[in-house]
Amino acid sequence: MATEFPARYTGPTVAEIGERATIRAILDAAPSHRNGDDAAVLPLPNPNTRTVVTTDMLVEGRHFRLDWSRAAEIGHKAVVQNFADIEAMGARPVAVVLALSTPGHTPVDFITELARGVGDRVSAYSADLAGGDLTGGEHVVVSVSAIGHLGGSLPALTLDAARPGQAVVASGRIGYSAAGLALLQRYGREQVPAEFSGLVDAHLAPTVDPGRGVIARAAGASSMTDNSDGLITDLGTIARRSQVGIDLADLAIAPDELLTAAGKLLGVDPWTWVLTGGEDHTLIGTTSKDAPSGFRVIGAVHRRRAGATVTVDSVPPVHSAGWDSFPGSGGGILDSETP
Amino acid sequence: MATEFPARYTGPTVAEIGERATIRAILDAAPSHRNGDDAAVLPLPNPNTRTVVTTDMLVEGRHFRLDWSRAAEIGHKAVVQNFADIEAMGARPVAVVLALSTPGHTPVDFITELARGVGDRVSAYSADLAGGDLTGGEHVVVSVSAIGHLGGSLPALTLDAARPGQAVVASGRIGYSAAGLALLQRYGREQVPAEFSGLVDAHLAPTVDPGRGVIARAAGASSMTDNSDGLITDLGTIARRSQVGIDLADLAIAPDELLTAAGKLLGVDPWTWVLTGGEDHTLIGTTSKDAPSGFRVIGAVHRRRAGATVTVDSVPPVHSAGWDSFPGSGGGILDSETP
Repeated sequence: MATEFPARYTGPTVAEIGERATIRAILDAAPSHRNGDDAAVLPLPNPNTRTVVTTDMLVEGRHFRLDWSRAAEIGHKAVVQNFADIEAMGARPVAVVLALSTPGHTPVDFITELARGVGDRVSAYSADLAGGDLTGGEHVVVSVSAIGHLGGSLPALTLDAARPGQAVVASGRIGYSAAGLALLQRYGREQVPAEFSGLVDAHLAPTVDPGRGVIARAAGASSMTDNSDGLITDLGTIARRSQVGIDLADLAIAPDELLTAAGKLLGVDPWTWVLTGGEDHTLIGTTSKDAPSGFRVIGAVHRRRAGATVTVDSVPPVHSAGWDSFPGSGGGILDSETP
Repeated sequence: MATEFPARYTGPTVAEIGERATIRAILDAAPSHRNGDDAAVLPLPNPNTRTVVTTDMLVEGRHFRLDWSRAAEIGHKAVVQNFADIEAMGARPVAVVLALSTPGHTPVDFITELARGVGDRVSAYSADLAGGDLTGGEHVVVSVSAIGHLGGSLPALTLDAARPGQAVVASGRIGYSAAGLALLQRYGREQVPAEFSGLVDAHLAPTVDPGRGVIARAAGASSMTDNSDGLITDLGTIARRSQVGIDLADLAIAPDELLTAAGKLLGVDPWTWVLTGGEDHTLIGTTSKDAPSGFRVIGAVHRRRAGATVTVDSVPPVHSAGWDSFPGSGGGILDSETP
């Protein structure tokens, strides 16, 4: 099925103006003096800095729908999910590169708005859209890679560094993105009741407070990840890689009023969203010290014992299945209820 | 049209074994101790090193065809075209990240072979496959981003640094990739006459001699790019950005015997491939000194004057149109004669 662009994107198409003019339009929408050579040269903040790199790909119909997401939101989300991975190492995001595959009939407007979404979001981190690649394709595919800098001699915040006795900490909402997706699936973008717009926004354009990973590393956190595949899945990865167990405090993660109301409306147990939802990109980690600024305690790390790796008030969670890109032969947001 | 995989890829599909098992298979095929966390931390070679970053996306049916390319060649090509961009800055490639979108019915064999192609090629540069992302999609889309290190205090080799009086230098074949593509279009992979296998290989799995960009920078080159969109187009970019003119020596770039024979067979003027072909990823640059080791002189830089920016023996080239990802509403290797 050919990609359909919403009517609000008007004007000439990429095929009409060609590759070079489209690239110029992207550079105008998200200017950077680092962009435009074979590769981008990034600044050297200080002599003792390591480079951190990650990548994430968003595919039309799997990770976004053009009848739900505005182009700017797609660019925004692509940046945030990459920068959350950089922050989850305790590093500072400094640049992204954007590879974009798109059909010839794509309105140039759509592409410049997407680039503006990328540019606005990287600016919020004082980072750059430092380079890219534009190519034809059947569907819209957005691939962003992000570069970060890890200063000083403290270790990075890795998945294998949780230790018994530490507190589990989190910064940001958990479950909002999944609730937003469920509302979109039921109502479509325009018909979601206004009181739930915060949930829809959390799904379409999640935000991560810039610098929280760097702060957490400076404040003594040892392990960290972001809530991308689901809280139980992602903390399960930390627990498995660190050979520890994790117990979450029911009260600290319980669905808030908004999630509870959305659950009631949709006839869904909001705990599903909290425990398995993912895509919030909230930073979750462990520390032997006080919760870093902007983080709250949601549980504790203990020695590995038989049974569930991650528990809630010492009991295995009622929901635990996380995101899999290939759940059977179809998969993705068009086919499945939970991401 | 659903993606068809050649019969040589047997065994279970990605949908059958799921995302996590497929990622484990990729990690086995291209192991790296840097891979496996939210982001990869790269080594710090010395205190005075800048980071260089670039990205390139390969789309099934546009940049490769599954009836022509083996999976390993797709991975190989994705690395080389990124590393050529890193080398064209005078930097040393140190890592790639690989984002892969692929249908659920993709044989896992295909994916592990592609990862092995990436892993083998990055190993040739003592670099790492440092991270990645795997997702579902209608077609195979391979997005690679590469990171390089630029040591010391010399400037990077940029597009705007050609100066009148410099020699134009090149390292590697020019026109081979386009000739290989033309042969594939006429004969298909299996029927190309054996004497032309070097041309087909140059298209499906181009090689760039590791370290040539670093050597050129150390030896006093100032500008550099790689032959990706066509010799006249790419040197035209250097000339325009540097506000100079470039004159190529007819004899230095004239089609060799193999190109001439292929041209005869296909009834094509082999100069088309040399001047407009692209995708060789041969390094081309300018220097005020002797040609760096591994480079040969192919022309000279002069002051900008009226008329063509790039000439051959002082005459505008007979062919000059380079690659455009959106030539009309279709485009790509399935529809057009020259890339």
